[in-house]
Amino acid sequence: MSELADSKTRTDLLNRLKRAEGQLRGIQRMIEEGQSCMDIATQMAAVRKALDSTYVRMTVCFMQQELSHRLASARADAGPEAQIESVLEDVQELLGKIR
Amino acid sequence: MSELADSKTRTDLLNRLKRAEGQLRGIQRMIEEGQSCMDIATQMAAVRKALDSTYVRMTVCFMQQELSHRLASARADAGPEAQIESVLEDVQELLGKIR
Repeated sequence: MSELADSKTRTDLLNRLKRAEGQLRGIQRMIEEGQSCMDIATQMAAVRKALDSTYVRMTVCFMQQELSHRLASARADAGPEAQIESVLEDVQELLGKIR
Repeated sequence: MSELADSKTRTDLLNRLKRAEGQLRGIQRMIEEGQSCMDIATQMAAVRKALDSTYVRMTVCFMQQELSHRLASARADAGPEAQIESVLEDVQELLGKIR
């Protein structure tokens, strides 16, 4: 499967992951300081949500990229339908990972 | 809501979070190196799973701690049933955060 070509999306994903990394460090601090389970849980749920939306962001970007790329190069022997099907199979695999 | 009293569990949670933090750094490296979306997705799904099991670990530890603590101090005017109900309300709130 392809890598992400769009540098703006890559920067966006990197920033989101860096933020999530900082949140994880914050949670470790909360545990060390003996903060309440509920407060820690709130922060953990926030990181989880942030990672999920990063995942969706990456999947959508991948779809856009692959559809525009493959539809542009679709030939008669493997027309747009086959190209779309192939991209959607990859997307299904991506989404299946966080099922 | 209480903090986690058991230092062994706290250490376990801290180690899990530290590992997840390292995984997130690894994913950033993968993006910078232009690795494939599917490989990045696999790693992201792994972090998500690791965070979820950390969350479950914390919730179970909280339940054990609160049940043993509150049942030991249950008095006649607020017997074990009321104590258990109160703990389960907290657990429901914890689990609701990642619904």
